[in-house]
Amino acid sequence: MRINKNFDDLGESYLFVDIKKRVQKFMDENPGREVIRLGIGDIVLPIDKFVTKEMARACKEQSRQKTVTGYGDERGSTSLRQHISGWYALQNTNINPDEVFISDGAKSDLGNILEVFEQGITVAIPDPVYPAYVDSNIISGNKIVYMNATEENGFLPMPSDDLKSVDIVYLCSPNNPTGAVYTREDLKQWVDFAIENDIVILFDAAYSHFIRDKKLPKSIYEIDNAKKCAVEVCSFSKMAGFTGLRCGWTVVPFDISNKKLNNLWSRRQQTKFNGASSIIQRGAVAVMSKQGQDVIKENIDYYMRNAEIIRDTLTHLGVEFFGGENAPYIWVRCPEGMTSWGYFDFLLSKCGIVVTPGVGFGKNGEGWIRISAFALREKVLAAMYEICNT
Amino acid sequence: MRINKNFDDLGESYLFVDIKKRVQKFMDENPGREVIRLGIGDIVLPIDKFVTKEMARACKEQSRQKTVTGYGDERGSTSLRQHISGWYALQNTNINPDEVFISDGAKSDLGNILEVFEQGITVAIPDPVYPAYVDSNIISGNKIVYMNATEENGFLPMPSDDLKSVDIVYLCSPNNPTGAVYTREDLKQWVDFAIENDIVILFDAAYSHFIRDKKLPKSIYEIDNAKKCAVEVCSFSKMAGFTGLRCGWTVVPFDISNKKLNNLWSRRQQTKFNGASSIIQRGAVAVMSKQGQDVIKENIDYYMRNAEIIRDTLTHLGVEFFGGENAPYIWVRCPEGMTSWGYFDFLLSKCGIVVTPGVGFGKNGEGWIRISAFALREKVLAAMYEICNT
Repeated sequence: MRINKNFDDLGESYLFVDIKKRVQKFMDENPGREVIRLGIGDIVLPIDKFVTKEMARACKEQSRQKTVTGYGDERGSTSLRQHISGWYALQNTNINPDEVFISDGAKSDLGNILEVFEQGITVAIPDPVYPAYVDSNIISGNKIVYMNATEENGFLPMPSDDLKSVDIVYLCSPNNPTGAVYTREDLKQWVDFAIENDIVILFDAAYSHFIRDKKLPKSIYEIDNAKKCAVEVCSFSKMAGFTGLRCGWTVVPFDISNKKLNNLWSRRQQTKFNGASSIIQRGAVAVMSKQGQDVIKENIDYYMRNAEIIRDTLTHLGVEFFGGENAPYIWVRCPEGMTSWGYFDFLLSKCGIVVTPGVGFGKNGEGWIRISAFALREKVLAAMYEICNT
Repeated sequence: MRINKNFDDLGESYLFVDIKKRVQKFMDENPGREVIRLGIGDIVLPIDKFVTKEMARACKEQSRQKTVTGYGDERGSTSLRQHISGWYALQNTNINPDEVFISDGAKSDLGNILEVFEQGITVAIPDPVYPAYVDSNIISGNKIVYMNATEENGFLPMPSDDLKSVDIVYLCSPNNPTGAVYTREDLKQWVDFAIENDIVILFDAAYSHFIRDKKLPKSIYEIDNAKKCAVEVCSFSKMAGFTGLRCGWTVVPFDISNKKLNNLWSRRQQTKFNGASSIIQRGAVAVMSKQGQDVIKENIDYYMRNAEIIRDTLTHLGVEFFGGENAPYIWVRCPEGMTSWGYFDFLLSKCGIVVTPGVGFGKNGEGWIRISAFALREKVLAAMYEICNT
């Protein structure tokens, strides 16, 4: 069997699977002990009825002869793509519905889009960052150049001469895991650099709805000329509680290489994908409607209030941290001399709190942990109580 | 931009997109003219309420704090994998739930599974066959050996010496487009051949629920030792009307290369997929329950009665055809001297009937068309009336 040997270069297992196993072991060894999960960024609040009712209606329609539907457009429903185009218009950007591709989630698109590029290209990836970028590039056999995201640059790597020859640059803003957000001026530099050096920017905007500061850009297309170089990947997961429902979108502008990238991605999706679930797309349309955007704000505000509580507690304790202002993640420095996994184990065993070890996001994450604001208020408060009293 | 040049080797566009465009053109030029669609294999009957109600319930649960769920297992819900394992047990086969991976559909899995193999391997693909096999292999830069499926071998290619060095063999039974079905004895030969020559069989069983003849195998695992060499891909699309809902499964047995392939696929899915939609998986569990398997029979029987009506009409007219007995497709020989697209255009312009040109499935499909039984009875009857009276 001739298997893809690139898989041998992957780490032992995917970060969150790893954490799951460690927590399970802790629970098995400490039966009855409460575990507070501030690790994985997974939603805990219910989805507003405005959205779930629309999906339930869509289910019911499939049971009637007059309203049953079959295969949808591989690129997603026209209605949803128009709603997304409308959302971009509200950000003062101009995205054609045919530049929008609906998928079963950002993770799929971020991995699959590599297929339209040559194998063995060079990609620039921030360190630390969401681990799926690195793993999917390892599987593709690409060369990875790491861009250091450290305290010195506010965890926001900027263009530099050694990046001129890369083919793709990954940017994630608001950032997972550090919570840092690029300004318009930062992104302007990136766009100019990408156009000058024929680089494609893969812009992961999965957390854009968590931006509170109106001066910060929610989309890279708010920057002039970004449509000439940037692909933007978004998700309904965190914005609307769709982590288990699966829906996201990717914008592949016509202006990149004279429609070529748009055509390639379209063909890839036609060949290896059959569209996102029609039921879930109906829910997504509800989310992108005016009323939907209002109702989802409630949950986002709730999570961001959690972030505030965590930040206030850490400030009170004199613990150093970043993020949590325009992103649902707080990036916390480990106590002197403690590693990420060391602090992870400490917080789990002493406080019963699950966080994410920073080193799981890259070598620069060593000495840091990520706290997620996706939790019920009582859990966040209980966790902060435990941290204050340990 | 360094793009994947393999895309240049693909045909102009994907077959069904092509047909869609031609039909649209015909409709634009002939406003008011009725078009009867017996082309694409897409369901037209509503899904039984037993299934849609379960999905609607799952939607509602997402709106309640007590029942909201987040990310699921990338491999699919335990309940669904157990139900599928149970279905295999009814076929006298033994599949562990951890050998089952739930996905958003067979098309995704059939394409994506190539990622766990080396690029540039050699694959054997029947001609004619479902076009996504060929296109996904072209994108991967693999070498394709075509196995002729012709009248002489009953459209069922068998092992031969020139296939000994291939890495993967694609088999599709019941076959799309010819409707041919392998017997147990046929598959026994394939399994023995695959084991002897270290070949992986990708067995596409998307139409297994349409098999009427109890002697014919619904799963390749009904054959001894198949678990040592065969990956089986299945789908809820045609079986239960899920074409727009998106759900399928793939079995990657532990016995292939000592769990290696199972581990690789698991890692691929962990990295580039986040599980099928929880709502749709709940519907799929309903489908795989005892009651579900009973209710879906009704629609399958309906479509197979359509196939019978088409077969009877063609027999009456003296038109030569194959299939339609254990599959929802009828493979029809074009009139003397007419090409597939010629007959397609003839049937569209003279009878207003959309079929699928056989050549779209491979060069051996030239001179044939595929008629799909996925249509409302009145449409099938109207189409047969038009054919009889043209």
